[in-house]
Amino acid sequence: MQTCIFCKIVKGEIDSAKICEDEDILAFLDVNPIAIGHCLVVPKKHFENIFDIEIDILQKIAVGAKHIAEKVKKSLAADGINLLQANGPEAGQVISHFHLHIIPRFKNDGLNFHPAQRQKLTIEELKKIALRFRSGQAE
Amino acid sequence: MQTCIFCKIVKGEIDSAKICEDEDILAFLDVNPIAIGHCLVVPKKHFENIFDIEIDILQKIAVGAKHIAEKVKKSLAADGINLLQANGPEAGQVISHFHLHIIPRFKNDGLNFHPAQRQKLTIEELKKIALRFRSGQAE
Repeated sequence: MQTCIFCKIVKGEIDSAKICEDEDILAFLDVNPIAIGHCLVVPKKHFENIFDIEIDILQKIAVGAKHIAEKVKKSLAADGINLLQANGPEAGQVISHFHLHIIPRFKNDGLNFHPAQRQKLTIEELKKIALRFRSGQAE
Repeated sequence: MQTCIFCKIVKGEIDSAKICEDEDILAFLDVNPIAIGHCLVVPKKHFENIFDIEIDILQKIAVGAKHIAEKVKKSLAADGINLLQANGPEAGQVISHFHLHIIPRFKNDGLNFHPAQRQKLTIEELKKIALRFRSGQAE
């Protein structure tokens, strides 16, 4: 992926503030943070999203995120941590290279990751949707 | 955890719309969805958050989330998927049992998971923060 910004960061062609890395994953600070300390964990190999990422790499990212969340919480004395991950431009994914956001949270920081009025469905309505998921059928 | 709602769902003491489960994890529909098809993946054993969850269970949740994201996208013909996970009440965690949200997204659905004006830091500023994370030091 010659034009992918995250591939260039992985290769060192674009400078970044690295937190940790191994042979498969890299964590670095987001250059446009939602909050100070906002990190990204990415696979070194180019995967676009959760649909095409390899299982073992996804597992490494999950474990890496846990360790980094601990580092971020301790280093910044954060009150909490949000993990956020977007798949597809309609979900807010801007760079089409899989990335997991790790965002430190503080009391009264004014952020809100539950963006909409939540709906109230009956258990019967929910079970109809679940049945579709289990059967893999579109409506 | 006698009073934990998700423990009660796991034990079947509260009804839920299940999508899939194995011996360690359960996925079901959120009863107050942000969007129709909003799912949760939880460990069957009670862990509060990403800080205390066991590594192998976290890995299973990540892999489960990938499979469920695929089911949700296909079944609802969703354009994208967001994953969201909160640790601590200050991060918006309401039920103190680890849970990963899987939220289907559609073009022009009006949702926004990037809740704040993003900041612009220099690479030098970012590297100072990264150094603190790597050394594990609080400021």
